[in-house]
Amino acid sequence: MSEPQPSQEQTSQQKEGPHDTIYIGKKPLMTYVTSTLIQLANQPTVTIKARGLSIGRAVDVSQITLKRMESAGYKIGDVRIGSETVQSEDGRTRNVSTIEIEIKKS
Amino acid sequence: MSEPQPSQEQTSQQKEGPHDTIYIGKKPLMTYVTSTLIQLANQPTVTIKARGLSIGRAVDVSQITLKRMESAGYKIGDVRIGSETVQSEDGRTRNVSTIEIEIKKS
Repeated sequence: MSEPQPSQEQTSQQKEGPHDTIYIGKKPLMTYVTSTLIQLANQPTVTIKARGLSIGRAVDVSQITLKRMESAGYKIGDVRIGSETVQSEDGRTRNVSTIEIEIKKS
Repeated sequence: MSEPQPSQEQTSQQKEGPHDTIYIGKKPLMTYVTSTLIQLANQPTVTIKARGLSIGRAVDVSQITLKRMESAGYKIGDVRIGSETVQSEDGRTRNVSTIEIEIKKS
């Protein structure tokens, strides 16, 4: 009944998504901050992605992460916004806004 | 009691803000889309700004506007994210995420 995308995103992240992408869903904010910090320990660039109502949280995650990494010299890279067409369970299609935020070594 | 920023933003927009900036608050989404379309009729670049919970709505406004202007050749320019320190009514400070989205002639 409720929005299906967060769990789908989680699944695709775990199964086939590239390891440098963090999909923001409805878990506690610090879960995503921790994931981002761990990814940044392993690679130079991490992309945070979100759709719809989670877009504000994605920005929050990027800002908290930057603050934690202040001394390590990370910065925001490209910020891309767009929209995707999703199909509701009743068969109708609607557009959902999306955001992708890159965090990378400065 | 609730978040004070949207009304503050509205005020600063009306009184002293540059005319090419649209601040997203809690009015119906199409109010902001209409404002953006009117501004784009008068100048080549419009910046959509939002804080906190309104960030997702700012992306929605930009996407709906682009769709309406499809034939006129507009595109998303710079997307900047950041955070601001705001003072709550109880005197404590907290950080709020911000977004600025440029829409301009392509």
